[in-house]
Amino acid sequence: MSSSHSENCIFCKIIQGDIPCAKVYEDDNVLAFLDLGQVTKGHTLVIPKVHQENVFELTPEVASSLFQVVPKIARAIKNTYHPLGLNTLNNNGEIAGQSVFHFHMHLIPRYGKDDSVNVVWHTHENDYTPTDLQTIATQISKNIL
Amino acid sequence: MSSSHSENCIFCKIIQGDIPCAKVYEDDNVLAFLDLGQVTKGHTLVIPKVHQENVFELTPEVASSLFQVVPKIARAIKNTYHPLGLNTLNNNGEIAGQSVFHFHMHLIPRYGKDDSVNVVWHTHENDYTPTDLQTIATQISKNIL
Repeated sequence: MSSSHSENCIFCKIIQGDIPCAKVYEDDNVLAFLDLGQVTKGHTLVIPKVHQENVFELTPEVASSLFQVVPKIARAIKNTYHPLGLNTLNNNGEIAGQSVFHFHMHLIPRYGKDDSVNVVWHTHENDYTPTDLQTIATQISKNIL
Repeated sequence: MSSSHSENCIFCKIIQGDIPCAKVYEDDNVLAFLDLGQVTKGHTLVIPKVHQENVFELTPEVASSLFQVVPKIARAIKNTYHPLGLNTLNNNGEIAGQSVFHFHMHLIPRYGKDDSVNVVWHTHENDYTPTDLQTIATQISKNIL
């Protein structure tokens, strides 16, 4: 097993062909296949072939090669099943909903309001002043390496 | 106004400096700034400087330049506020929750189970046989251009 793969990672086993998948797309760096769970019809996962656990670990090269194929796959899903919209979602950390610890981006076509997916969130427009926001932005930007 | 911008697009106005923002990061192709709604502290939007409406419109070059900075910004948020996890989310189409029609990726740090964001989805493991999944994957892959 090459060092770019992680033992006991189910996605690495799929990449290596040890576990089958319903393959949508493959190139030298990226694999896309259907999520077994199919939140909606055509629900696809896009993953890098190298084992990088989450967005925090992604190198710029891997992120770039992965994401440049995402629109291509999104367009193919659109042209196949004509959804009304599509969400891309990526969960990092158990608390964020990650269950397989190999970076993956979900592409979830949306067919209607009652189609099995609902992102519930609460915004906090009134909790932060413009000055608060500037402070937060400055703090984060100082940590960009 | 250059042809890469769209009139009446609030994000194009932010890019051009006509509307202020709490800026986290900027380079030749990409701008990142805090979402005014701050679902959680540090909630950041990453957008391309050219006006492309959604993931279906993104060119490979724009997608690549945008996404290669996403991990960098995710790491900066992590190193600043030490969230337990982070979701990246991008909504395409009104039905998917898109309200500004200029591509944007949300970076939403996660601090706990009760922190204002909840992705509710229902999987359908038993609704599709392996043959069904292969058929779907083949249909989509034929539409990848």
